[in-house]
Amino acid sequence: MGNADYVNDTENSTHRVAIPPPQPFLKSLNNALKETLFPDDPLRQFKNQPPARKLVLFLQYIFPILEWGPRYTFNFFKSDLISGITIASLAIPQGISYAKLANLPPILGLYSSFVPPLVYAIMGSSRDLAVGTVAVASLLTASMLGREVNASENPALYLHLAFTATFFAGVFQAALGIVRLGFIVDFLSHATIVGFMAGAATVVCLQQLKGMLGLDHFTHETDVISVLRSVFSQTHQWRWESAVLGCCFLFYLLLARFFSKRKPKLFWISAMAPLTSVILGSLLVYLTHAEKHGVQVVGHLKKGLNPPSIMDLAFGSSHLSTAIKTGIVTGVIALAEGIAVGRSFAMFKNYHIDGNKEMIAFGMMNIVGSCTSCYLTTGPFSRSAVNFNAGCKTAVSNIVMAFAVMLTLLFLTPLFHYTPIVVLASIIIAAMLGLIDYEAAIHLWQVDKFDFFVCISAYVGVVFGSVEIGLVIAVALSLLRVLLFVARPRTLVLGNIPDTKIYRNVDQYPNTKNVPGVLILEIDAPIYFANSSYLRERLSRWIDEEEDKLRSSGESNLQYIILDLSAVGNIDTSGISMLQELKQNMDRRGLKLALANPGAEVMKKLNKAKFVETLGQEWIFLTVGEAVGACNFMLHTCKPKPTTDETEKWSNNV
Amino acid sequence: MGNADYVNDTENSTHRVAIPPPQPFLKSLNNALKETLFPDDPLRQFKNQPPARKLVLFLQYIFPILEWGPRYTFNFFKSDLISGITIASLAIPQGISYAKLANLPPILGLYSSFVPPLVYAIMGSSRDLAVGTVAVASLLTASMLGREVNASENPALYLHLAFTATFFAGVFQAALGIVRLGFIVDFLSHATIVGFMAGAATVVCLQQLKGMLGLDHFTHETDVISVLRSVFSQTHQWRWESAVLGCCFLFYLLLARFFSKRKPKLFWISAMAPLTSVILGSLLVYLTHAEKHGVQVVGHLKKGLNPPSIMDLAFGSSHLSTAIKTGIVTGVIALAEGIAVGRSFAMFKNYHIDGNKEMIAFGMMNIVGSCTSCYLTTGPFSRSAVNFNAGCKTAVSNIVMAFAVMLTLLFLTPLFHYTPIVVLASIIIAAMLGLIDYEAAIHLWQVDKFDFFVCISAYVGVVFGSVEIGLVIAVALSLLRVLLFVARPRTLVLGNIPDTKIYRNVDQYPNTKNVPGVLILEIDAPIYFANSSYLRERLSRWIDEEEDKLRSSGESNLQYIILDLSAVGNIDTSGISMLQELKQNMDRRGLKLALANPGAEVMKKLNKAKFVETLGQEWIFLTVGEAVGACNFMLHTCKPKPTTDETEKWSNNV
Repeated sequence: MGNADYVNDTENSTHRVAIPPPQPFLKSLNNALKETLFPDDPLRQFKNQPPARKLVLFLQYIFPILEWGPRYTFNFFKSDLISGITIASLAIPQGISYAKLANLPPILGLYSSFVPPLVYAIMGSSRDLAVGTVAVASLLTASMLGREVNASENPALYLHLAFTATFFAGVFQAALGIVRLGFIVDFLSHATIVGFMAGAATVVCLQQLKGMLGLDHFTHETDVISVLRSVFSQTHQWRWESAVLGCCFLFYLLLARFFSKRKPKLFWISAMAPLTSVILGSLLVYLTHAEKHGVQVVGHLKKGLNPPSIMDLAFGSSHLSTAIKTGIVTGVIALAEGIAVGRSFAMFKNYHIDGNKEMIAFGMMNIVGSCTSCYLTTGPFSRSAVNFNAGCKTAVSNIVMAFAVMLTLLFLTPLFHYTPIVVLASIIIAAMLGLIDYEAAIHLWQVDKFDFFVCISAYVGVVFGSVEIGLVIAVALSLLRVLLFVARPRTLVLGNIPDTKIYRNVDQYPNTKNVPGVLILEIDAPIYFANSSYLRERLSRWIDEEEDKLRSSGESNLQYIILDLSAVGNIDTSGISMLQELKQNMDRRGLKLALANPGAEVMKKLNKAKFVETLGQEWIFLTVGEAVGACNFMLHTCKPKPTTDETEKWSNNV
Repeated sequence: MGNADYVNDTENSTHRVAIPPPQPFLKSLNNALKETLFPDDPLRQFKNQPPARKLVLFLQYIFPILEWGPRYTFNFFKSDLISGITIASLAIPQGISYAKLANLPPILGLYSSFVPPLVYAIMGSSRDLAVGTVAVASLLTASMLGREVNASENPALYLHLAFTATFFAGVFQAALGIVRLGFIVDFLSHATIVGFMAGAATVVCLQQLKGMLGLDHFTHETDVISVLRSVFSQTHQWRWESAVLGCCFLFYLLLARFFSKRKPKLFWISAMAPLTSVILGSLLVYLTHAEKHGVQVVGHLKKGLNPPSIMDLAFGSSHLSTAIKTGIVTGVIALAEGIAVGRSFAMFKNYHIDGNKEMIAFGMMNIVGSCTSCYLTTGPFSRSAVNFNAGCKTAVSNIVMAFAVMLTLLFLTPLFHYTPIVVLASIIIAAMLGLIDYEAAIHLWQVDKFDFFVCISAYVGVVFGSVEIGLVIAVALSLLRVLLFVARPRTLVLGNIPDTKIYRNVDQYPNTKNVPGVLILEIDAPIYFANSSYLRERLSRWIDEEEDKLRSSGESNLQYIILDLSAVGNIDTSGISMLQELKQNMDRRGLKLALANPGAEVMKKLNKAKFVETLGQEWIFLTVGEAVGACNFMLHTCKPKPTTDETEKWSNNV
């Protein structure tokens, strides 16, 4: 399509760019708040319902069990029973291991697998999530509280602070859900979580060297250098019995996982492996009296259900601020894992999970937990995956697990007396190795270098610094990237795709053609204060460079600049000033500015700021094609004006 | 154009969306860094030049005076002489006033108008900027240093800390310029500055009540409540002589400004008014001996040029951290004002200012200043405007001003002995009232409510809290807005503009028509970790709502979803996962997903992540029009598939 067509087209095909009708301020504020805080419109189902129905819906909203409970069938129960028992067999050894990792009494791991799953079963909306403690939050509790209070010197205070931290984690989680700020969790990007989890897993594995080598003394730091120095400074203390036993069990566990991975039907081999390890290990120690030959054992576990701990919450303690800080950090980490797990399985089975509602459920679970001798729980990935593979249908599997743990607490705790610590260590290591997702890291490198950089920073920060340092670095880098995107938007030159009226980026489509005398630029971000100075300079540089190029090649002068605003989602007053200055600058140089396809928001503000008047409504076009058509029409009908060289006049002024 | 046309078009008009060729990693990293840190390509002029020329260019780059100096003419000098003398007449009384505001010896105000302008004249690239001290930075110095050291009890330490703060302000400013992080200043948006300046002006005016009422004791706080309490708790101390004198001079100054504003030719009336006020006031006091009747005077000013102060820099002081903090905060504020002023006048006269280079000039000016008994200087708006109106041509006007101040320092300081403080107070108030730009605030309200909110927050923060609180609130709100934009992108439904192949937002263009069976959505922000969860939910909700609507109206089923990615500037791995999940989810519901116009960066990443394969290259279109065409072609040639109601199957599962 040649230039002649454009000229013919111009008259009849030009459409006005609409200026949206003004909205009352309160209405638009209300809309903006609603979109920000209630993007999922949770009140939609309440509309046009009688009050009684509203109450039922409200109760079902808070307690999803009321919604699915009445429809529960015996067939579902059979599935849930199997999966519940499977996850209980995983929960018991893992619970004890993670409680040791948090420097808490091992029995707390069992307590934490009893009450919180019951709360979640009533309030949670995921059908696949299995509730329990997690390694990373346990490690974080140990490292953050351990800096203030020594767990072995002052176990009671340490325990009370752990309950208090759990309480505040719950309060914080519930509060985030209630004020609908759940999107804070979104700021932990996938890349951050991959790096962070791998780092935390590395750190947790390193910590297990204590148990594996049967060491008595160990550093309180978590970074790799301190740990290795601590391990290798006491080589004479290494217990070979412990190490050999540990390696055997680790081999067994990894083998079991290897088989399960190859045949998903054999998931139960991997799920049962920790419990069989514990049983085998305990039997072995009991029969050989290995506890007297350097193999440390769990020791006495108290029989009986969770004692209340509401009176242990240390609100008056001088370490309260540490407890609050620990609670918030572990709470957010736990939330991020739990929500991500819930969401992934919901996607598999195609049901919907409301993030904010889940947060309230997690929060309540931890608040109730902190009053019943539990520490921080969430929905761990490994346990939920086993639950899913075992065919769970509803949250009843959590109730089954809770009952299994209850029976263990009531009758079976003495059996764990001889459980060797080294078996627990190998259970943890086996679980942690699965968290180091190097494939995901390779994928990040291939797809997005910056994401990979964030991921590696989080890993290095966690492994060589501390868990918090890694997290802060990764979140800061992620935010920096968002800010950089806005501060340094790209400006693209567009060219005409031959035989069409379509204009696209000349770098992406090398076969595009320039339109003589017209420079078409696209801005691919909102125009905000953070980038308006940059855009002012960058757009001038594009124009300068284009003029230089045309001058050196002896082609016709530049006469029109078309700014494609399709990708400019919004503009603020600094951005409008930038456009006004650009317009003035171009007027002085004898160039004409045209805008193409400004969006509703942009058009509204340009109109209010009178920029539409200044520019002339006739210079705002619906598409780049129409803008080019109009420019060409002018170029061919009006006689071309020479570019008044005011620029040069000014720069020679001095 | 009916559907039939689309079908006919589909075959021959579809264009492939290009996947940009892969770039070597180091090359793309290099490009990205260059665009981020060197958007103005400062090395462009050095390319292809012989070494000797390069050296000359380099020296001219560092010292712009070498560039314009040789072309300087006598005609320029005549203009610069007049403007230089004009700004000197403003600089002398303002300098004394602002130094008093900073709780520093008044003579420092004169020192600061001597050395820094000379440095700037050599290194600065603005032709219109007049260098001097500013009220806001003076007040900030007083409030931040005053919290640590009492200026009246320990004047020497206070003075040394002020020099040290100036030194660090200079170092910080120069460092920002050298590492090319000048864009940090851009994060102070126009709205922030309007609110902040108005707040600071209000606070400064309130501080002048001390001088106006002739009070001896005054609060060290700057917030309105403390100040008013301090003023009204000592009503018996008010001196009516002082107040009457002050009001008269204030009236005179405001009247002069009023006339100058109405006739820009009379700018000199306003410019000279402060000096005539000082002369009149001093004469009045000298003749009536008013200093013995409650009118405070400046008192003795030392004769002679700036003494060196390099040995006074208090690097070893225990208050060093306060000095550094003060330096950084005042340095950034001063930089923001100076750069903005330089840029606005450069725009008027159409020459270019390199922000990073200016920062180095400001930094050097303050480093040299701190070694020669000057405190923080920048390019104040009022003085530069007078300079501009007086017809200055180059930075020589700053040199003229410096010489005029030098002569004053050498010979005229005794004349200021009887200058009444109250006259200085009215000079400050008159200058500050001009900074309260309520018209700009009204404009913000009309154009952009959020900007207005930021502006008012800054104002309220400064007036009721402190200068730093106001600043922190405003910057945090501005950043929050950028983050919110990314965290909550808008998703727009597009419709067909009748008789075209153009698709636009149905809210902005009410005459658009839906395409039966096809839902077209546009995302107007990059898809990042911060918004991918939100987009996942929001897109599902659009689809749900559309299906509900079609079902209730009995229309044909929804079959195609077209995502217009024109405005999606970038995507990260979280965003790609979101698209993959969306695709899976839609497959399960029997819907087809098509993408329209993904950009180069997005296409590259989708390809690397194998999403292009998963989706099928044939489902990625260059324009929405082509995508709709293809969908319509399928709808009419293939027999419509019933939507497999897997959704319902799943949700009835329990």
